[in-house]
Amino acid sequence: MLKQQAVDRVFYALADPTRRALVERLSRSPASASDLVKRLEITLAAVVQHLQVLEESGIIRTEKVGRVRTCRLEPGGLRLAEQWISERRSLWERRLDRLGDILDEEDLEPSNKGRKG
Amino acid sequence: MLKQQAVDRVFYALADPTRRALVERLSRSPASASDLVKRLEITLAAVVQHLQVLEESGIIRTEKVGRVRTCRLEPGGLRLAEQWISERRSLWERRLDRLGDILDEEDLEPSNKGRKG
Repeated sequence: MLKQQAVDRVFYALADPTRRALVERLSRSPASASDLVKRLEITLAAVVQHLQVLEESGIIRTEKVGRVRTCRLEPGGLRLAEQWISERRSLWERRLDRLGDILDEEDLEPSNKGRKG
Repeated sequence: MLKQQAVDRVFYALADPTRRALVERLSRSPASASDLVKRLEITLAAVVQHLQVLEESGIIRTEKVGRVRTCRLEPGGLRLAEQWISERRSLWERRLDRLGDILDEEDLEPSNKGRKG
């Protein structure tokens, strides 16, 4: 999967509040689909559908042992979205810092002081 | 605005690839809506609508000077989503680390060695 496509899927998956509630729950421990139904008061069918979106985006992985399918978080999926955001935010913040430095330097230049006076 | 509601809005805003392209562009410098139209090959009406969603979510702010409305990133909006993800990811990773430690300790216990041999 292309990185762009992977980023699209992770952000699509995280946009839904119920899917974020599932991520929240799974950040504490692995759980089966029926464990998740108990906590979230939605149907098993809805939970299964949301888990599928989360799995396709790489945010969780599921593993079937016997008759029970257990879901657990995959840190890599979440990290992809986190990095995307962090890179844009820090690019902009570095730019703001540089602008601040330039303004400070201009304030300190004697020629500018002369012009102001 | 409640924090939960703010988180909902930021993730909703970031789910759309065009809005993420706008964030990407604005992470390099502030821009007007018409600057953004040139880069993205979509209509001005569509850009304006996407900018409105981004502004309501606190990811950007816009300021009108004369006839031009300039858009710039607001690091706080992005940071909200970044923190939400990072907190869940690190909660899970710490849990994985603790599990690893417990397994290591069990391997080192003499009683376990006895059982294995």
